[in-house]
Amino acid sequence: MKRKIAILGATGSIGKSTLDLIERSPERFEIVAVTAATNSEALADIARRTGARLAVVADESRVSDLEERLSGTRCRAAGPDALNEAAAGEADLVIAAIVGCAGLMPVMAAVEAGRTVALANKEALVTAGELMTEAATRHGATLLPIDSEHNAIFQCLAGSRKADVSRLILTASGGPFRTASSDEMRIATPAQAVAHPNWSMGAKISVDSATCMNKGLELIEAHYLFGLPSERIDILIHPQSVVHSLVEYIDGSVLAQLGSPDMRIAIAYALAWPERMATPAERIDLAAIARLDFEAPDVERFPALRIAREALEAGGAAPIVVNAANEVAVAAFLAGAIRFSDIAATVAEALDQADFAAPSSIAEVLEVDRSVRRRAEAATKAMCH
Amino acid sequence: MKRKIAILGATGSIGKSTLDLIERSPERFEIVAVTAATNSEALADIARRTGARLAVVADESRVSDLEERLSGTRCRAAGPDALNEAAAGEADLVIAAIVGCAGLMPVMAAVEAGRTVALANKEALVTAGELMTEAATRHGATLLPIDSEHNAIFQCLAGSRKADVSRLILTASGGPFRTASSDEMRIATPAQAVAHPNWSMGAKISVDSATCMNKGLELIEAHYLFGLPSERIDILIHPQSVVHSLVEYIDGSVLAQLGSPDMRIAIAYALAWPERMATPAERIDLAAIARLDFEAPDVERFPALRIAREALEAGGAAPIVVNAANEVAVAAFLAGAIRFSDIAATVAEALDQADFAAPSSIAEVLEVDRSVRRRAEAATKAMCH
Repeated sequence: MKRKIAILGATGSIGKSTLDLIERSPERFEIVAVTAATNSEALADIARRTGARLAVVADESRVSDLEERLSGTRCRAAGPDALNEAAAGEADLVIAAIVGCAGLMPVMAAVEAGRTVALANKEALVTAGELMTEAATRHGATLLPIDSEHNAIFQCLAGSRKADVSRLILTASGGPFRTASSDEMRIATPAQAVAHPNWSMGAKISVDSATCMNKGLELIEAHYLFGLPSERIDILIHPQSVVHSLVEYIDGSVLAQLGSPDMRIAIAYALAWPERMATPAERIDLAAIARLDFEAPDVERFPALRIAREALEAGGAAPIVVNAANEVAVAAFLAGAIRFSDIAATVAEALDQADFAAPSSIAEVLEVDRSVRRRAEAATKAMCH
Repeated sequence: MKRKIAILGATGSIGKSTLDLIERSPERFEIVAVTAATNSEALADIARRTGARLAVVADESRVSDLEERLSGTRCRAAGPDALNEAAAGEADLVIAAIVGCAGLMPVMAAVEAGRTVALANKEALVTAGELMTEAATRHGATLLPIDSEHNAIFQCLAGSRKADVSRLILTASGGPFRTASSDEMRIATPAQAVAHPNWSMGAKISVDSATCMNKGLELIEAHYLFGLPSERIDILIHPQSVVHSLVEYIDGSVLAQLGSPDMRIAIAYALAWPERMATPAERIDLAAIARLDFEAPDVERFPALRIAREALEAGGAAPIVVNAANEVAVAAFLAGAIRFSDIAATVAEALDQADFAAPSSIAEVLEVDRSVRRRAEAATKAMCH
C-alpha cells in the first residue's frame, strides 16, 4: 500500500526536495495534502501535478486565486482554517516544513492525531519541545527529524535503548567566522556572515550559522527529541560538514552518520523509515575528501552556544525567548541596524529580562513569542548605530 | 536470567578481555565452559575463578594436569573430545577465540546447535564461510563478529534490510609500510614489519597488517558474514584507525563506527547484544584527535589486496588456499627464510596451482588446508635466500 503524505510548506526548499523524491518513487507514495504560505500559483501547480486532494494556502487573500486555479480538478482549495485538517487528515506521514512559528499549530494537530511527523521546522521543538514530545507520547505519534544533524543522530540511534546511550555529539561547521577573531566578528558585515562554507541556505539561517546560534537551537531540539540532559549533548566543530553528527554509547562505541550536503538524504530517510529508499544525492568519497578535522567549540567567541545552553537548562519559556529574540536580532543585523556582536547581546539581554514560566499550550507559546519579539524589537532599535 | 557463556580459547587475549568484562558485570553473565589449547594451569585458574562447570584442554597430554588442578571443584576437566561439547553445550553465547583452523570444528558444533556465536576466529569465515553461514541459516544460529572492522559494520547495519545497503567500507590502517616504496618493502625486516602503528598484536597478524593481507582476509570474511558481493565491499586506508569501518546505504547515508583501539568494545557488544553494556575502554575525543585521514589503497604496493579479492571472486576452496599459504609464508618470513615481498608471491603461486573445488564439510576444509600448507612449505624452502 502506498504511504499517504501531507506536505506542510510544499513550495519551500524542503517541500520541493520532498516532491522530487516522491516523484522518483511514485509506487511508494501518494500525496494527499499540500500547503503553502502565500504562493497559490506554485501550490496549485503542485496540487495538479501530484493529484493531492486538499491544497491549503495560509494567506486568506490568496484563497480565491487558489480556488480558481484548481477549479475542475479533484483537489479542494482551502484557506488557513484547513491547515490543521491538512496536517491531521488522512496522511500517514506529515512533512512539517512550514517556516517559523506559523508551523506550530498544524504540527501539534498532526501529533495529536497520532501521525508520523517529519520535522523540518526547528521552531516546533525549540519553542514547544516539551508540549510536542509529551503529546507525541500521549497520542502515539512518531517524530522524525529531517534536519541533517538530528536525522544523523536518529540514524545512529536506530533500535537502541536510551539506557545504552552515553552522549550525543552535534557537529557544527563553525560557519564563516570559525577562525575569525572577536574583533573581526564584531564588525562583520551581513555579506560576510551569510557566506556559509558548505551548505547553500537562506540569509537568516546563514547568520545563525555564523553566530553558532543554529547549533545552540539544535542543542535544544536534540534535548527534546532524544530526551538527554544538556550535559550529555556535546557540540563539536567539524569544518568539512561530512560527519553530520554522532552518538556515543556506554561501551565506548561511537556511531556517526556521514553524507553529502543534500537535504534529500534526510528527507528520504523520513519518507521511507523504517526502511530506506534510493536518492540521487551525491555519494561521499572519503579517499577523495582525504581529511576530516575536528575541534572544540569556542564559547568565548561564540557566546550563542553558551546562551542557548543556559536557556535549555533554565527550561520553561527560556528557549522561546532565545528563538524569538534571535530572529529579531538577525533581522536587525541583516538590515544594517545592529552589529554582528549585538545579535548574541540582544538574545542574552532578552533572556535576562524574561519570565520563564513554562507555557501550557501552543497558544501560550505563541503569546510568549510575540511579547519577546516586541521587546527585542525595541531593544534593537535602541541599539542602532 | 543470566546469559550463559562458553569461552573457546579462554587463555588468549580475547579470552582474557572477555573475562575482564564478565567479571565487571557478574549479574548479567554466567560462564559455563572454558577451553584452552595447552595452558592447563591458566585454564584451571580461570575455571576456579569463574565457577565454570566444564574446562577443556585441547592438548591430550595436559588433561591429567588439568584434572589434578580441578579436583575437589564442581568443574569437570576434559580433553579434546569434549571441545564440541564445550561449544554446543548449555551456553547461550559462545565466544569463539581459538586461533587458527583448530577452531573450525567447535565453531561448527556451536552453529549446528543453533547458538549465538561471537567470532574472533578469522579462519571460521575465511576458510569455511559458505559452510558456516549456510549452517547458521539452517540451524537458526546467529554469528556476531568481534574483530573491530566487522563488528563496526554489524553495528552500522543494526536493524537494516539488506536491500537498503549499497556498500560496505572496511578501513585499514595501511600498516607500518603505508608510505614505504616497493623497494623498501622488498627488503623489510621482521622487526620493521611487526611494528604496527595503532594496535598491539601478535607477530603473525602484525605481518598481515604490513602486507595488508589481514584486510584481504577481512574482505573475504565480510562477504560471508554480510552476504554482499566483492564489488560492493571497498577497502579504505585510514591511518589513525579511529573509524573502524563504514556502511553506505542506498539513500547516500554512510554510517560509521568509531572507537579507541580496545577489543573490549567489540567483545562487550557481542556479550550484551542486542543491548549494550558499559566497558572501561577509553572514550575517543575527536577534538583532541583533531584529524582523520583517508586514502585509496594501493594494490600495486600491496598485492595481497588483489590476491585476496581474486580468491573471494573465485570462491570454492580459493580462500582456504590464501589463508594457509599466507600463514606458511609469514612464518617463513618471520624465521628469516624469505623476503617480505615473497609473502604475497608465495600466496599468489599457491593460488595459481590450486584446485578450487568447494569443500563440503569442515573435514574437507581441514584437508585442503593441510595440503596447501605442505606445498607452500616446499615452495618457501625453495625460495630461501
